[in-house]
Amino acid sequence: MANKEMDGARTATSASASAKSAAGATRARADDGEVLCRLARTIGARRSADPATSYVATLFAKGDEAMVKKIGEEATEAVMAAMEGDKMRLTAEIADLWFHCVVVLVRNGLGPEDVFAELVRREGVSGLREKASRL
Amino acid sequence: MANKEMDGARTATSASASAKSAAGATRARADDGEVLCRLARTIGARRSADPATSYVATLFAKGDEAMVKKIGEEATEAVMAAMEGDKMRLTAEIADLWFHCVVVLVRNGLGPEDVFAELVRREGVSGLREKASRL
Amino acid sequence: MANKEMDGARTATSASASAKSAAGATRARADDGEVLCRLARTIGARRSADPATSYVATLFAKGDEAMVKKIGEEATEAVMAAMEGDKMRLTAEIADLWFHCVVVLVRNGLGPEDVFAELVRREGVSGLREKASRL
Amino acid sequence: MANKEMDGARTATSASASAKSAAGATRARADDGEVLCRLARTIGARRSADPATSYVATLFAKGDEAMVKKIGEEATEAVMAAMEGDKMRLTAEIADLWFHCVVVLVRNGLGPEDVFAELVRREGVSGLREKASRL
Repeated sequence: MANKEMDGARTATSASASAKSAAGATRARADDGEVLCRLARTIGARRSADPATSYVATLFAKGDEAMVKKIGEEATEAVMAAMEGDKMRLTAEIADLWFHCVVVLVRNGLGPEDVFAELVRREGVSGLREKASRL
Repeated sequence: MANKEMDGARTATSASASAKSAAGATRARADDGEVLCRLARTIGARRSADPATSYVATLFAKGDEAMVKKIGEEATEAVMAAMEGDKMRLTAEIADLWFHCVVVLVRNGLGPEDVFAELVRREGVSGLREKASRL
Repeated sequence: MANKEMDGARTATSASASAKSAAGATRARADDGEVLCRLARTIGARRSADPATSYVATLFAKGDEAMVKKIGEEATEAVMAAMEGDKMRLTAEIADLWFHCVVVLVRNGLGPEDVFAELVRREGVSGLREKASRL
Repeated sequence: MANKEMDGARTATSASASAKSAAGATRARADDGEVLCRLARTIGARRSADPATSYVATLFAKGDEAMVKKIGEEATEAVMAAMEGDKMRLTAEIADLWFHCVVVLVRNGLGPEDVFAELVRREGVSGLREKASRL
């Protein structure tokens, strides 16, 4: 649904989204954020599936390190895409990176909503103050 | 489990969310996903602020490479937290990583909703088939 | 010198080096350093070989990005090995990392001796001063 | 090419080395490789120094994770330099990366000669066969 915009040479991104009706924008955003949570549920459901038919099952069969390693690999690819300034590739690589982050979260009994909660907690705290408080 | 305490102020965590009413859970999830989009808007608003008071402005003042580099740095810290099996730290490091991904997205005229759209596009496509289609 | 014991299983390496005469040990270190330069020459010679028989040729056939990406991947694995405190694996992962660095150096018309020259240049300059001079 | 000027003090760079007498070239290469081993000794000597005057002491004072993390950070910078095709920066970033690898090796009771020994062990083994033997 959402990705039909993507095919249209990505007309619908931040820019056009702001021009949307309030109702439409709200619905779109709700769905948007929800995809990471849906992914977490799918990953949880597929982790014991047949590795021959499920990429997620393949990762879980390979073990913890294979999953964790993907975070480093996909981050490197996101960095490379950003250096190239290739927007489509950057979007795809960050999607890969976030996907593999969700895999590692699920493996540790966590989910995207825990990361969201942490980000919500930090809202209203200036980044500099937040950073200082962690030092 | 540890990080459940971290956000006592928040009502929704993976565990408690499942016990919720459908309406409540939907609202919680919408808010959860929305935090990344709110972050993108905040980043867009603060990018030209005074670097002395805004971490985001500091990053934009340092230039593209300083922003991109953070993806590699935070990914390394997420990998280290996962190796330690420290759930609170893993949650915090992935929050850092996603935050810096959003910074780079905004810098490139993109937003979290573009990543969500890409993930939605991939839903229903088996990971193995999707992976194969990219080779 | 410390881990010469580590790899009793590894027959032709550190273990035997400790049994060497002082002169031999010195010679061994000279040879040791030379292995990176030999590697660079081997990489240069194999880059146009048949990808079916040469890993180096495979990397060159895949293109620049495939080579560069390996630096991020192998660094992640070195970080993971260090977190585990597994000395044999750490040694092997850093060997992988340095190997892929030499591949990228050769691809760019450089070699390990350029890195050595940079490190020699920095000798005698305090790390803090050197770091400051780069800021 | 650019970084040839960087070390006017040094006699050997890739280009000039080939023009050298066999004896000179051998001596230069021995010294080249030796710089990593000298570095390891310097790091071992400075690890308990005053953090105010020694970058190495700063790293050891910050603890294991601070050291390990640098491998991921410097690898990211090397990847970025390679993407830019900036030879001087690539040389400098790989020097940084190898330096921080030596720090982590020393911290684990290892040294560059252990990595060299591993690389020597792999010589003569085809990369593809070596890779296969690790799978």
